Amino acid sequence: MNVSTFLQIIEIIGTFAFAISGIRLASAKKFDWFGAYVVGLTTAIGGGTIRDVLLDLTPFWMTNTMYLTVTGIAMLTVILFGRYLIHLHNTLFVFDTIGLGLFVVVGVQKTLMVGFPFWVAIIMGTITGAAGGVIRDIFINEEPLIFRKDIYALACVAGGFVYFVCDKAGLAPVVSQVLCATAVIMSRIVAVKYHLSLPVLQGEEEYKQHGGDETDSNNPIN
Amino acid sequence: MNVSTFLQIIEIIGTFAFAISGIRLASAKKFDWFGAYVVGLTTAIGGGTIRDVLLDLTPFWMTNTMYLTVTGIAMLTVILFGRYLIHLHNTLFVFDTIGLGLFVVVGVQKTLMVGFPFWVAIIMGTITGAAGGVIRDIFINEEPLIFRKDIYALACVAGGFVYFVCDKAGLAPVVSQVLCATAVIMSRIVAVKYHLSLPVLQGEEEYKQHGGDETDSNNPIN
Amino acid sequence: MNVSTFLQIIEIIGTFAFAISGIRLASAKKFDWFGAYVVGLTTAIGGGTIRDVLLDLTPFWMTNTMYLTVTGIAMLTVILFGRYLIHLHNTLFVFDTIGLGLFVVVGVQKTLMVGFPFWVAIIMGTITGAAGGVIRDIFINEEPLIFRKDIYALACVAGGFVYFVCDKAGLAPVVSQVLCATAVIMSRIVAVKYHLSLPVLQGEEEYKQHGGDETDSNNPIN
Repeated sequence: MNVSTFLQIIEIIGTFAFAISGIRLASAKKFDWFGAYVVGLTTAIGGGTIRDVLLDLTPFWMTNTMYLTVTGIAMLTVILFGRYLIHLHNTLFVFDTIGLGLFVVVGVQKTLMVGFPFWVAIIMGTITGAAGGVIRDIFINEEPLIFRKDIYALACVAGGFVYFVCDKAGLAPVVSQVLCATAVIMSRIVAVKYHLSLPVLQGEEEYKQHGGDETDSNNPIN
Repeated sequence: MNVSTFLQIIEIIGTFAFAISGIRLASAKKFDWFGAYVVGLTTAIGGGTIRDVLLDLTPFWMTNTMYLTVTGIAMLTVILFGRYLIHLHNTLFVFDTIGLGLFVVVGVQKTLMVGFPFWVAIIMGTITGAAGGVIRDIFINEEPLIFRKDIYALACVAGGFVYFVCDKAGLAPVVSQVLCATAVIMSRIVAVKYHLSLPVLQGEEEYKQHGGDETDSNNPIN
Repeated sequence: MNVSTFLQIIEIIGTFAFAISGIRLASAKKFDWFGAYVVGLTTAIGGGTIRDVLLDLTPFWMTNTMYLTVTGIAMLTVILFGRYLIHLHNTLFVFDTIGLGLFVVVGVQKTLMVGFPFWVAIIMGTITGAAGGVIRDIFINEEPLIFRKDIYALACVAGGFVYFVCDKAGLAPVVSQVLCATAVIMSRIVAVKYHLSLPVLQGEEEYKQHGGDETDSNNPIN
């Protein structure tokens, strides 16, 4: 088994895990089969699609039917074994995290290839890994989870930063990529294991929506 | 009246019906005139815009003022005759469905023209027909309707598939297009008439948001 | 101090004010630091990003780290001085409004430069000024504010229209731009001062979601 086959297997695993997460959340919202499929697909390909649009590249899934097929298999899995998936929680978590690591690597790599600097590549790696979940949460009409439980997205940033350091240190691309993916995976596992999370911003109870106070009595320019 | 005029009339009718649907929903949410106009416009042009961005084409509405104008007329119609629109329900349904058929044809056709394979074209046809409604529902902060009442989007897929079969059978493009639009329209009418809908995915009550369980007590790697 | 430095200072002020508005709303929703940063950044750069994607240009923030940095400073400001920001309400309103004026000018100018007609430029100016706030409101799962309190977006349209009239009158570009920004700023200040707002569309209580009535008993084609 060569490297390319290995990478493709990881990509399939990651796509599958991302799609499963979307489909399960859609099912919790009583979406029908079509809706669940779309939410699953968007979770899996949404981040990479935004990345490709921003980089002015052809969205990756438009040149390979693999992503549609894998989402279809994820759909079948939920339909047939939905009740038992809860017991596969650990396995799905591992799949999802491995997928995340690869997605970040692909995002960073593609961005560098088009000639953008590293800080753009780190953002694109994070978008590749995390934006699919944001779209998923918007579709199911919830506040995006990664905005309140951040280690997911921050693990992507950490991985991108490791890639950057390795690259500056003159390591071979493949080594940088493996270390980047490892950093993403490790950050997330450590964060989950030790319940790490970022502090919550202190809300100002008085502050409502920006501009919403324009017609208030405490209007600034009255 | 030649074919091109005929198509343009259908496009106007479709745009009008899509815009009306957005404006009416915005009005139910007490949006103001500007908000209602934007929601109406987005419903009408949102799907095609996403398609054009993904295909790396200039968004269609940026080269023709017609879409803004028709949305303005739709706006006026709701302002002046809003109370009576409920009685035009049948007419609006027919307009909307005819528009849907045309939108799918345009989406499929444009995608093939740029050189993508048919499966991409079918997806783009569906996006053209259905994504505007998804953005509309996100704007009014509702779960997208087509994810719970699918025949709308599935009718687009069916139409795209008919286009594909006709094309493979060697039929002239215009024939494929007419049959595609007919398939979309018929699928939707049949689905509505016989109350057809896809099964709802069995929700797992226990399953909350993906990753949301990361800090739960049943944490996988604790 | 030359014009270019002056413009950059205004852009920094505008970015800062937009980011602050996003971060404060995110904090009211108990988002964590990462989430608040992303919402702040999106509020500041979201409109310009959509504009650039529609115009098929490289998103402006991908060639300049300034926007990330300024959002970081905005973040720090909220973390350190969040409790006192409420007393800076007037200052923030002025910053935000000046920023809005500049954003519209940039949006109109960039669109004309790529060769689109003025009506597209006015839309792009409005998107540059107002779409970031729409994405912000979608992220925090609220109905977009500008759809219910419109003078914000309508001020952008007014400014774009002033730009158009000045341009047709043969004024020098820099004069048109100053008058455009002034029009945006004045419209907004006047609207806030006199509590101006557009009428709300009369909702039809009976009308629910488009298509949602497909399975109703008053189904059109039963």
